[in-house]
Amino acid sequence: MKLDKNTRILMVGLGLIGGSYAMGFSRRGYRVSAIDVDEGAIAFALENGYIERGSAAADPALISGADLVIFALYPHLLIPWIAENQKYLKPGVVLSDVTGVKSCVVYEIQKILRKDAEFIAAHPMAGKEVSGVRNSDDGIFKEANYIVVPTDENTFETIELCKGIGETLEFARISALPPKAHDEMIGFVSQLTHCIAVSLMTCSKSEHLVDYTGDSFRDLTRIARINENMWCELFLLNKEALLAQMEKFMAEFKTLHDLLEAEDEEALKEKMRLSTRRRALFDK
Amino acid sequence: MKLDKNTRILMVGLGLIGGSYAMGFSRRGYRVSAIDVDEGAIAFALENGYIERGSAAADPALISGADLVIFALYPHLLIPWIAENQKYLKPGVVLSDVTGVKSCVVYEIQKILRKDAEFIAAHPMAGKEVSGVRNSDDGIFKEANYIVVPTDENTFETIELCKGIGETLEFARISALPPKAHDEMIGFVSQLTHCIAVSLMTCSKSEHLVDYTGDSFRDLTRIARINENMWCELFLLNKEALLAQMEKFMAEFKTLHDLLEAEDEEALKEKMRLSTRRRALFDK
Repeated sequence: MKLDKNTRILMVGLGLIGGSYAMGFSRRGYRVSAIDVDEGAIAFALENGYIERGSAAADPALISGADLVIFALYPHLLIPWIAENQKYLKPGVVLSDVTGVKSCVVYEIQKILRKDAEFIAAHPMAGKEVSGVRNSDDGIFKEANYIVVPTDENTFETIELCKGIGETLEFARISALPPKAHDEMIGFVSQLTHCIAVSLMTCSKSEHLVDYTGDSFRDLTRIARINENMWCELFLLNKEALLAQMEKFMAEFKTLHDLLEAEDEEALKEKMRLSTRRRALFDK
Repeated sequence: MKLDKNTRILMVGLGLIGGSYAMGFSRRGYRVSAIDVDEGAIAFALENGYIERGSAAADPALISGADLVIFALYPHLLIPWIAENQKYLKPGVVLSDVTGVKSCVVYEIQKILRKDAEFIAAHPMAGKEVSGVRNSDDGIFKEANYIVVPTDENTFETIELCKGIGETLEFARISALPPKAHDEMIGFVSQLTHCIAVSLMTCSKSEHLVDYTGDSFRDLTRIARINENMWCELFLLNKEALLAQMEKFMAEFKTLHDLLEAEDEEALKEKMRLSTRRRALFDK
């Protein structure tokens, strides 16, 4: 199957990311429908032209009409939804997702899924500090990474189709990683950074410091406004990889602390020089 | 003394901050001269109209002509410079600075300074990831905090003059804090955040992750490009306050790690909710 304007796309879940996908596809002339338990979200997406049909129930007609189903659900809802509703899927359908962690979902889904359907995992690394379909904004993809996360079960054709989702929505960079490498990377660049931001906000009473915070403090804590239900779930689902990253960071931070305590100027400067060199690569 | 366009201002040190001060004062019609050991820096500032006179030596004529001397030097150079050159100062002169740590310099300077001169400490919380007079930009003050750091030795009139520097350069917020409170605050909002950013860059080989870093990682590590000579000196000069902040942060981060390890969902979410509430105050 190839992604084109005849492809009937069904979004399951119309939160910030599901809504922004629907918005982005519709704006480009694709045919999108949606299922979300929140009737208000469906009504909003219909009114704003993000979708042409929608339902608050797992409507068999909507499901069986779809060529491509994209799940933008909390991970714990994903597997039960597929188990319960896969009987309605059209033969040859492709399923994909937007989940932020992969090993814990992709293998299980591929195991339970009907043999005439294919699931290909993907992770759009985009977001906002606000949630819900009312904050939909397909502009958030413009600077963002889109990662296809295939397993040995996936066909070349479906991997290409999945890349096509990222291309259509005009992500800045599209790449592919196996599940384990993806989860380690996410543990480091996304989850560890959120743990740091949260700890920085919770370690001291900071209310009286509002007037003194410069850009650095604001930058480091911007992501400390966090949807606790989603992030707690993602942390727990990626627990081993994240704990390993946290431990690596703690050890390094403790080293810096001990160098300062020992007033080891040369070693402190060497850390700073390494940091500067590595960070410079990110600005190229 | 009041700050007005008859005030002869002498900048000692023409790096990024000294240069930006000179630029900001000159643009507004103030008379600025400068001393910096780097002849190239003086030449650049003269050519660009940041100063009307300058010298690479501690020129007695320049020093004795100044009503207000502002030091934008590395802290370790500050006290020796004053000790050596205060004999040239005009009676009634006011001295100020831009140093990022205070307890370790202000009391010592006030102790050694001639009784017919007054030193008032100030901290412009502004910067860039680049240094040197060639990167001067008085626009960096527009969103920044300016903190006057008086001691019991300072007169009301001089504190007002010092606030006037911040007002003239159009800082966003001007406030006053005693040295100890200033250094604790800076240990938290500025130095701790730089320690975190450096540790995040040095704890893992991250070169291969450039393609996957989203906004969060980039935000948290923007300040990881660091002038190692200046920051190492500032860290060491504020060692006790910074170590205390680092220890508080480490304990909190370890708590988060242990909650995740124990899969204590409710406690994890409570941390995230506290973080979200506190961070929301910063966006008001």
